[in-house]
Amino acid sequence: MPAGSALFSENNLRSFTTSIFLQIGCSEAHASLAADVLLRADLRGIDSHGVARLAGYVRLWEKGRINATPDITIVHETPTTATVDGDSGLGLVIAPFAMNLAIEKASVYGSGWVAVRNSNHFGIAGYHALMAAERQMIGMAMTNASPLVAPTFTTERLLGTNPICYAFPAGNHPPVVVDMATSAAANGKLEIAQRKNDPLPGGWVQTAGGESSTDAHALKSGGSLLPLGSDREHGSHKGFGLGATVDILSAVLSGANYGPWVPPFVSFIDPLPDLPGKGIGHFLGAMRVDGFRPVAEFHHHIDQWIDRFKAAKPIDPLQPLIIPGEPELQAAHDRKKNGIPLVDAVVSDLNTLAEKFNIQKLEG
Amino acid sequence: MPAGSALFSENNLRSFTTSIFLQIGCSEAHASLAADVLLRADLRGIDSHGVARLAGYVRLWEKGRINATPDITIVHETPTTATVDGDSGLGLVIAPFAMNLAIEKASVYGSGWVAVRNSNHFGIAGYHALMAAERQMIGMAMTNASPLVAPTFTTERLLGTNPICYAFPAGNHPPVVVDMATSAAANGKLEIAQRKNDPLPGGWVQTAGGESSTDAHALKSGGSLLPLGSDREHGSHKGFGLGATVDILSAVLSGANYGPWVPPFVSFIDPLPDLPGKGIGHFLGAMRVDGFRPVAEFHHHIDQWIDRFKAAKPIDPLQPLIIPGEPELQAAHDRKKNGIPLVDAVVSDLNTLAEKFNIQKLEG
Repeated sequence: MPAGSALFSENNLRSFTTSIFLQIGCSEAHASLAADVLLRADLRGIDSHGVARLAGYVRLWEKGRINATPDITIVHETPTTATVDGDSGLGLVIAPFAMNLAIEKASVYGSGWVAVRNSNHFGIAGYHALMAAERQMIGMAMTNASPLVAPTFTTERLLGTNPICYAFPAGNHPPVVVDMATSAAANGKLEIAQRKNDPLPGGWVQTAGGESSTDAHALKSGGSLLPLGSDREHGSHKGFGLGATVDILSAVLSGANYGPWVPPFVSFIDPLPDLPGKGIGHFLGAMRVDGFRPVAEFHHHIDQWIDRFKAAKPIDPLQPLIIPGEPELQAAHDRKKNGIPLVDAVVSDLNTLAEKFNIQKLEG
Repeated sequence: MPAGSALFSENNLRSFTTSIFLQIGCSEAHASLAADVLLRADLRGIDSHGVARLAGYVRLWEKGRINATPDITIVHETPTTATVDGDSGLGLVIAPFAMNLAIEKASVYGSGWVAVRNSNHFGIAGYHALMAAERQMIGMAMTNASPLVAPTFTTERLLGTNPICYAFPAGNHPPVVVDMATSAAANGKLEIAQRKNDPLPGGWVQTAGGESSTDAHALKSGGSLLPLGSDREHGSHKGFGLGATVDILSAVLSGANYGPWVPPFVSFIDPLPDLPGKGIGHFLGAMRVDGFRPVAEFHHHIDQWIDRFKAAKPIDPLQPLIIPGEPELQAAHDRKKNGIPLVDAVVSDLNTLAEKFNIQKLEG
């Protein structure tokens, strides 16, 4: 456990988080679902997307930018496609609604694809994609996000870290879960370097003028994150292309905001005027494995795929190949048993919420 | 035009290429379609995937690894999903068959997804994805390929450059076409450096032992291409995750070969024994834009998306942002008008074919 942090049980954090969502007016079902999405991030070791964000959601609610009692509706539909309007609700409950719709469509027709507008931050993409994988479907989830990434050759932040997730069910092995930001580094890694006063590796950020930088604070002086690939020579145009794909599928297709107009997650920055769409956008999909081949055959071959890749000759015998999703599952096993570490700043943030809503404080 | 090359008209190359495919026994329809896929690559400036590969296809046919008269069949199906067996045919004709099936399904149900096994190299992914975009659908195409890329932390070539393509129709603008290998650099770029005897930038390849290398010949001594991201610190696990996603969708889902078992494109390397599947695999999809929102609305917003990104402040005023697909379209305009440049080695290769099949040689 890192210094300046304490351990909390899953149950403790879950009931605390549920209470806060109830306090801002969410229904029982929404509060418990939203808490489940955040807790899953903490369990899986993706600390930046778990309860550490709870205060941020509350601040957006205080600003009137999150509706705790949304009327989530399907505004456009074919047998296997739909667009959902989230009515400014929590992405944490809108995305599961949309994924359930995709899964229903896939159950009947083989596949289902749902674009979402008028939503907010949806937590970890893996949560939603795994909903499909648990039903022997291939799950896909992506979202656009606050603009922080400058496309290749430019100095303007026009894309978010726009994650893409694919989850594949397996047989004897746990699911393969590819869950990745389309930037070279996630913002959370910059925050860690800031706390430690460490320089960044080159290729993560650039200055306001577009020069390569190792300053962990570069974004505070007009700098930008760089797309996956870091520079043109190493394929940053591909990272830009992936981020653009996420932006178009999530927002241009759904009627959400895109590019520089995506409303910031932080409540102290107001959205731009004259927005072209509503809220932020997501795109979710599910395909039945047995729409392509019998599930048992697929399980046999994906298990063989996993076994073969795990057996790959390592450069360093102490660092074998990592199957996507494996470290997160390992973290979940450990943290369910031993507790979830939260840094003191997060605990203090959560306890400020506890005071505000007059509920019991967290104790490590 | 580069030194050591000559210009050829589209029509000249098209009739030459069609003749060769007819000579190996393809039907008129297949020969003309296969030639169209190769010519589109040359027109779009993706020289590595055009007629330069014609001799390679012929050599695979001579080895009995390509069937010129395949019986392409649908072996598994739901309303919106299918698996196609390509009967060892040319990927150049199997992939369009599969994409047409995806488009038909999307026309009726909103979306269509087709996994393909028992195929061969399908040319440029963009050709297939654009078939959907021309019908106001979002097109997606991916394929696995000969293993050249070592996953993060390993020294084994377990993945191909496994490209992903998304094509989005636009209104007043041409389609946005994201078409990218999931490796840091494509093999074609190494070949250019080899011809010029130039060192590579770091981050493209590693040695057989897994050390970073700038040797353009590194693959010939057991080295590997690196995934997009180049190293762990810059996100190579994401490039690996994307390549893995392509491999699983294209081959584990379809019943093709995956990982190290993907049969090599070059005819002088035999496939491994005890293959787990058939041929190489592709995955193609189409989603109707009006399955999500009216086409006119989508056109309006994607045009605004393109305009806003094109207006992004450049680092260097002489190098503005590039919309994915724009350079390829510009190349196609130029080359349709001025001709397609082929390097002498390719012309000589093609004229060896001409002699073998007793057809008229190319003249620049």
